[in-house]
Amino acid sequence: IPQHLSFRTHTCGELRSDHVGEKVTLCGWVQYLRQDLFIILRDFSGLTQILIPQEESPNDLKAVLCDLTVESVIMVRGTVTRRPAGQENKNMLTGEIEVLAENVEIFNVSKKLPFEIKDFVKKSESLRMQHRYLDLRSSQMQKNMRLRSELVMKMREYLCNVHGFVDVETPTLFKRTPGGAKEFIVPSREPGRFYSLPQSPQQFKQLLMVAGIDRYFQMARCYRDEGSKPDRQPEFTQVDIEMSFVDQSGIMSLVEGLLQYSWPAEKGPIQVPFQTMTYEEAMRGYGVDKPDTRFNMKLIDLSEVFSSTEIEFLRSALAQPGGSVQAICVPSGAVRATSALFCPQELSLVLVRADGSLKSPLKKLLSVSATDDLLQTTGAKPGDLVLMAAGSLHTRPLLGNLRLQCAELLNSRGVTLRDPSVFHFLWVVDFPLFLPKDDEPEQLESAHHPFTAPLPEDTPLLYTEPHKVRGQHYDLVLNGCEIGGGSIRIHKASEQLHVLKNILREDPSLLSHLLEALDSGAPPHGGIALGLDRLVSIMVGALSIRDVIAFPKSFRGHDLMSQAPDFVSEEDLNCYHISVKWPPDDSEPSLPSWSKHWFSL
Amino acid sequence: IPQHLSFRTHTCGELRSDHVGEKVTLCGWVQYLRQDLFIILRDFSGLTQILIPQEESPNDLKAVLCDLTVESVIMVRGTVTRRPAGQENKNMLTGEIEVLAENVEIFNVSKKLPFEIKDFVKKSESLRMQHRYLDLRSSQMQKNMRLRSELVMKMREYLCNVHGFVDVETPTLFKRTPGGAKEFIVPSREPGRFYSLPQSPQQFKQLLMVAGIDRYFQMARCYRDEGSKPDRQPEFTQVDIEMSFVDQSGIMSLVEGLLQYSWPAEKGPIQVPFQTMTYEEAMRGYGVDKPDTRFNMKLIDLSEVFSSTEIEFLRSALAQPGGSVQAICVPSGAVRATSALFCPQELSLVLVRADGSLKSPLKKLLSVSATDDLLQTTGAKPGDLVLMAAGSLHTRPLLGNLRLQCAELLNSRGVTLRDPSVFHFLWVVDFPLFLPKDDEPEQLESAHHPFTAPLPEDTPLLYTEPHKVRGQHYDLVLNGCEIGGGSIRIHKASEQLHVLKNILREDPSLLSHLLEALDSGAPPHGGIALGLDRLVSIMVGALSIRDVIAFPKSFRGHDLMSQAPDFVSEEDLNCYHISVKWPPDDSEPSLPSWSKHWFSL
Repeated sequence: IPQHLSFRTHTCGELRSDHVGEKVTLCGWVQYLRQDLFIILRDFSGLTQILIPQEESPNDLKAVLCDLTVESVIMVRGTVTRRPAGQENKNMLTGEIEVLAENVEIFNVSKKLPFEIKDFVKKSESLRMQHRYLDLRSSQMQKNMRLRSELVMKMREYLCNVHGFVDVETPTLFKRTPGGAKEFIVPSREPGRFYSLPQSPQQFKQLLMVAGIDRYFQMARCYRDEGSKPDRQPEFTQVDIEMSFVDQSGIMSLVEGLLQYSWPAEKGPIQVPFQTMTYEEAMRGYGVDKPDTRFNMKLIDLSEVFSSTEIEFLRSALAQPGGSVQAICVPSGAVRATSALFCPQELSLVLVRADGSLKSPLKKLLSVSATDDLLQTTGAKPGDLVLMAAGSLHTRPLLGNLRLQCAELLNSRGVTLRDPSVFHFLWVVDFPLFLPKDDEPEQLESAHHPFTAPLPEDTPLLYTEPHKVRGQHYDLVLNGCEIGGGSIRIHKASEQLHVLKNILREDPSLLSHLLEALDSGAPPHGGIALGLDRLVSIMVGALSIRDVIAFPKSFRGHDLMSQAPDFVSEEDLNCYHISVKWPPDDSEPSLPSWSKHWFSL
Repeated sequence: IPQHLSFRTHTCGELRSDHVGEKVTLCGWVQYLRQDLFIILRDFSGLTQILIPQEESPNDLKAVLCDLTVESVIMVRGTVTRRPAGQENKNMLTGEIEVLAENVEIFNVSKKLPFEIKDFVKKSESLRMQHRYLDLRSSQMQKNMRLRSELVMKMREYLCNVHGFVDVETPTLFKRTPGGAKEFIVPSREPGRFYSLPQSPQQFKQLLMVAGIDRYFQMARCYRDEGSKPDRQPEFTQVDIEMSFVDQSGIMSLVEGLLQYSWPAEKGPIQVPFQTMTYEEAMRGYGVDKPDTRFNMKLIDLSEVFSSTEIEFLRSALAQPGGSVQAICVPSGAVRATSALFCPQELSLVLVRADGSLKSPLKKLLSVSATDDLLQTTGAKPGDLVLMAAGSLHTRPLLGNLRLQCAELLNSRGVTLRDPSVFHFLWVVDFPLFLPKDDEPEQLESAHHPFTAPLPEDTPLLYTEPHKVRGQHYDLVLNGCEIGGGSIRIHKASEQLHVLKNILREDPSLLSHLLEALDSGAPPHGGIALGLDRLVSIMVGALSIRDVIAFPKSFRGHDLMSQAPDFVSEEDLNCYHISVKWPPDDSEPSLPSWSKHWFSL
């Protein structure tokens, strides 16, 4: 990095023994003062030891330097000298040298700070957020911010320079989308009229394909108002991509190439192509549509084993439509995990003792052959724990969730199932296009969004049995987190209209501009959106996406530094023709329902 | 651009005589159908002529192709053949070849469109906006979008890869800034609490410097609610830059390097360093703080000439505080411009006849020596027009405005003062830090914003005569348009507090987080923001920034395609605890006051 635009000649991480004898100027923050002999000066790039001259000087240099408070900002001019033999510091990039100060300028004297800028000093997250400008000085946050910036730059190079994508900015003040209950609204100066902050540029990216842009991308700011939710942000960023004249495999190859190209060298190479799994396979093997494939412990179907069981609750479970008996086998689970496990009533536990005998409430109900069958099918060995659930549709998700809890638990007890340095990407494909509505199971809703095209072989079913249609949708999963999703889109107005009107029973007039566009020469097209915050947080091993966002909101959507959102005067609301409806009891809103389940995070 | 992810083997602008004999697949839009013999196929990269086979074929290829409507989207497989001698088209990049169709797939049949996608077809702007996805197919809009994307990519390379800047995203849901009357508000789910969409990331960029990020940039989406204003957009993009340990000249060099590096080759090289002019010089010479320096016609001070004049209105003008007589000399103005000129009463016109004699209401009042003096000082030659204004402070802006009008007028009459292919950058520096408030001249307000540092030599005046302080502010002007502005910031809490509290008389508690940050080890820092939309529009010679934005709003802030902003149901407003205050008369709002002055655009 050339420094010629700056006051400094070098950064604090730059000087080596090659520089000995050079006159240099460094700028930075006082990290430590040591025995009136040294100052450790810090900037984003590292630390340099500044030697305080001990002799008297006309500018009283020693007194000035020794008076400094930590975190004050100074500029030091001096000469690079080799450290005396034996005093080198191998843990410091600049540990071979020190700079003998000849001149200092104090730019800013720091008062006593609410916490020290040392990596080992623990501080609460709310204190960090209140003083985010201090928290960002930590070496971890500096690293996170810089890695994110570099990743985005490499992604842009790949998309723009290698593949001819056009970076197009789309509006964030737009029209409310049908069903857009989670969209923030923005009052305009026309009475009763509001903009909406869209959840994604979905409509725009499709319109850009109709416009012949051919290949579009954008690091798109998106907005989602979900009230308070843990580890969600009201604004977030997605790597938004759309291409014309492409099929599902084309988009998937592009994304694999993108991640391979932009992956930080320090995180090791990643292998492409990524593993692909159908939605069916994922649900069957992992009980979830975003399986963590870094470890095995897959779901085992025991329906066969118990097909002629006498055990009442198993028999009645198997008799239900879609009923099954499912299990996971937790290696070493018997000795380590059971007590701490969250065990719903539906669950049966079978522990395999060291001698191979079982310990379980079920034990006395199981015949010898059923016991053998059970052990063989689950592969349970002495010391293992078998978790069994019987029932209909919810059985697999229940065990899928327990599978993850067990992995956490084993991890906390020192059994590592998942190598933390491993990144396992997975495509999940062939999702159902529609799902029954929770509160109205006769009515279908889009599994993802209404613009996803059906699989070509399922297209006729759209008009006969829409609940059976699979979509050309693909999710990208990394270490068990969904980090992206996309689809090939419907590019024919008649098909889109059928989906909106006849299947989803939505008012198509709200999307008339899109329908009209699909009748005006729309190319086949598809795309994807990757959640940048989530991707970076997994990459750096952060516990929360808040650690890869410069100024995140708290889980209640507050900015703890500035106290946003804040009250606005009635006068300021007048030009927007709105007024506040104060609730009769203006106490704090009660905790939302999810908070009861927060334990899982 | 590699095409391997796509259905096509080549783009429509790519095939040359080298490709003759190759089997190719092209995808695109039907631009023309010619006499059932040819189809011209278009994509973003150009046009290719498709030869329709005339013989009968099993798949009835001729009938299928001849049936196509323009703007339908197809995929054609065929063989590249050389055009018959004499039929090459030199105006077409692919004019040496044509593709003999062997197979076609019709992706989308276009209905009749509201306008043709031909560059020569004129359409109203509102029609273009209603069907923006069609308008963007024009070669000019394709060019504008792609040039913008490439420019931004080059800027990023320069900032990130060459100068180590960190791309940091800052929130757009934030707290209202003091005096932020033009900030959109966003209701939250907490009664009475609102976010604000900030006009710029100013506070964040400064906090990032305090955080030790060292060099920050962002292509930042900004929001400004000015109601309806011509050629303004409620959301716009700025190239937002901030650096630590830098002075004004460092930022200026950086920006010069940035523009030189990213300037499109096709627009010719630009010269650095840019010309620099003080605010004083700009006002004196051009009557405006963003002079168009592509042509001369500067303001001439005639106060000396008339220092002892008998002419009453000149004498009284000169007697006022700050009074002066100013003129511009319009070359060939006498014969071309006068009749169409907007002439305020304050103005005196002096025409120089071909024989050198004057034609002017002033003529009989002017002595021979005064006439000589006038001609000599203005340099007026036969055929020229001298526009003279006498008065106090408004005189220069008046003539500055007339100078631009005259240039327009001469241009429309065929006298080119400004080469349209020339890009003239100019720095304007040494602005006053404060200006008297319009409605309360005793009270000062910031000329730009309250964070600008004073010139070092003017700093003591902050405490004695703040109205005399000049700021370390710099504006970047391109061809008479302000395309950027920045400053070195105050980095000491005490100085910032003095400015806010004692000079501006604002409530410093609204900025307590920033003041606290400036007490916590704040480095000296400064930055700039460039208006990307405006810069690109000047670069491509667009009449409006709407021509370089994919989905712009109308001047009333409407999206004409989707009809945003739109009405929101009372139910949807409930969760935000607001209700609409419908005005008693719910007719359309009357035109704002600026509309009377719209003629000047």
